[in-house]
Amino acid sequence: MTIRSTLPGGDQSALRHLNTRRVLEALYDGPPLTISGVARVTGLSRPTAQAILASLTDSGLLRPDGHDMIKTGGRPAQRYRFNAAAGLLAGIDIGAHAVAVRIADLNGVLQTGVRRAVPADLPAGERLQTALTLLDQALPHQTARLWAAGVGTPGIVDSGGAVRLSVAVPGWTGVRLAEEIGRRLDCPVAAMKDANLAVLAEHRHGTGRDVSHVLYVHVGHRLGVGLLIDGHPFTGGTGAAGEIGRHPVLGWEEAPSRLLAEAGAGAVEAVFARARQGEQRALSAVDGFARALANGIGAMVLAMDPRLIVIGGGVAKAGTTVLDPIARHLASICYEVPDLQISTLGEDAVTIGAIEVARDRVRAELFTDS
Amino acid sequence: MTIRSTLPGGDQSALRHLNTRRVLEALYDGPPLTISGVARVTGLSRPTAQAILASLTDSGLLRPDGHDMIKTGGRPAQRYRFNAAAGLLAGIDIGAHAVAVRIADLNGVLQTGVRRAVPADLPAGERLQTALTLLDQALPHQTARLWAAGVGTPGIVDSGGAVRLSVAVPGWTGVRLAEEIGRRLDCPVAAMKDANLAVLAEHRHGTGRDVSHVLYVHVGHRLGVGLLIDGHPFTGGTGAAGEIGRHPVLGWEEAPSRLLAEAGAGAVEAVFARARQGEQRALSAVDGFARALANGIGAMVLAMDPRLIVIGGGVAKAGTTVLDPIARHLASICYEVPDLQISTLGEDAVTIGAIEVARDRVRAELFTDS
Repeated sequence: MTIRSTLPGGDQSALRHLNTRRVLEALYDGPPLTISGVARVTGLSRPTAQAILASLTDSGLLRPDGHDMIKTGGRPAQRYRFNAAAGLLAGIDIGAHAVAVRIADLNGVLQTGVRRAVPADLPAGERLQTALTLLDQALPHQTARLWAAGVGTPGIVDSGGAVRLSVAVPGWTGVRLAEEIGRRLDCPVAAMKDANLAVLAEHRHGTGRDVSHVLYVHVGHRLGVGLLIDGHPFTGGTGAAGEIGRHPVLGWEEAPSRLLAEAGAGAVEAVFARARQGEQRALSAVDGFARALANGIGAMVLAMDPRLIVIGGGVAKAGTTVLDPIARHLASICYEVPDLQISTLGEDAVTIGAIEVARDRVRAELFTDS
Repeated sequence: MTIRSTLPGGDQSALRHLNTRRVLEALYDGPPLTISGVARVTGLSRPTAQAILASLTDSGLLRPDGHDMIKTGGRPAQRYRFNAAAGLLAGIDIGAHAVAVRIADLNGVLQTGVRRAVPADLPAGERLQTALTLLDQALPHQTARLWAAGVGTPGIVDSGGAVRLSVAVPGWTGVRLAEEIGRRLDCPVAAMKDANLAVLAEHRHGTGRDVSHVLYVHVGHRLGVGLLIDGHPFTGGTGAAGEIGRHPVLGWEEAPSRLLAEAGAGAVEAVFARARQGEQRALSAVDGFARALANGIGAMVLAMDPRLIVIGGGVAKAGTTVLDPIARHLASICYEVPDLQISTLGEDAVTIGAIEVARDRVRAELFTDS
């Protein structure tokens, strides 16, 4: 399916087509408008605006939405709004330990979601199939209603949506993620490093609202970094921006292992709990972990100078128990420690970000000339 | 002086004023155009275009430039081009060891330049005065002809052009550079970290042409990093992007000292010369220097994933003698070593970049609505 084919009247004149897109753009993200309101916002004549609103309503892209309360002598004027139910979006998170799918309407509002734990050594083909199975489960016989999808995964993902390198997921390097899923879903698919989707989600719906310059750090079994610059995920020249964990001198990748060693057969949460109670050995383990983590985060802060750092992933649940020592160690590395926050979206951050890039894709296809 | 006050007819209607700016924009960066050419490019009627061209020529912003060679029955049509001599731009580089000034026309073409060595411990006030003295020297009694200026200096410079922190220049922290120089010159002044100006210069006129994602590393008495993202200098949330030298674990700031120790009372160039001749001790000193340097550059590459690294500063003169060992050490840090080049602009990079931000300032003032 092409998104533009949903626009009414492929046999319309080019100008009418352009005007149709202007009307749709005026209503896409905004409040409902009357015919006069649309004419005013778009600069179109009232008869043209009226004809286009009728045609877009017939094709299901707009829907009537109440009446303008201000009486102007005649009947109250009909208002129109974008029909977010005209299509669906999918957000897909293919991780090392779990696969998750989220379905939203065209405004990004959650319709349904499903998550399944998978073994870390699941082969690439079966991992991909798990995502498609979950999609079928979330949308039985309805994947044709999808307008676009976003996919996030740990690793370096190139601008074409292929995995250039993944150390966390076996057999994942070289998988043409966007292409494979796009072929099965028959809609545009964008794929990106999961942490980049998470930082976009935090910016639009989480703790990073109103901040356009954000560093996101996923801290769990593995570490992952996502960057937001000028409100957009920043992937770098080859998709590898944020891969500070590779630096041999910083020893960043080993940070979680110190904590895991202290946890032994138990859970990491128990170490944080003991630290909260002031137990010296746990405090020392958490502090060593925070110091190692701050080394890598500090390098990222010095490099890109973000306004905000968001900590996500499983460790984020420890809250200030982990945040405070990280901030303390950062103070000895950075000129100025940026605001440091725990993710408010938790494990949903990646699928929410994936829905957002799918929305951006729809917006680009509908409103950008090409 | 405000740049817009140079536009003819302050008493013109708002529409005529807007149309005047459209005509000027069409000719500012482009080839000369005839009246018909201007009408075609701007969408204005021929009489309107003709009247505006006459008015802009009277005010000195445009000048006649030959005739269109294609005969159309009547006389060959007069062509007009932007008069780059209508004003001047200044690029100022206030470093720890030298102050330099470059004067260019509005197209950025060099008119004159002057550079003066200064002692590293010169007080801030005298350092600033040196820049102003050099400006007077380069432009005797003509600083009123300046439309805009750019200033570069080592250190963290905020978006208002004030030095937030400088370790290289004594007493420099807190100096409101853009404001102080702007007051003396009576024109808009933009100030930025010198390495950010250098990377812009390399992108527009040097080795970084056609690459919009560049890491610039100044290697001299001190180290400095400039970033270019999407073709624009990237300064980060507070002006501190690129300050990886601060990281205690990377030991980057000490890199030059190793080379200086080997040079002893002699020049660093002599160490490179001995290394080129294969002398083991010099080779080892250069290698240690390159390894320390690669630690910091590698962290910047992993963080920002640039397409190109440009090495500038005094050490750049050593060419492949220093480039090759840096590339070798980077290979053990990065996933993929970006293209690595020596600056082609040398010590002029900062003043050339400063002229470019001054040009951008003129463009913004003339053509952006606000």
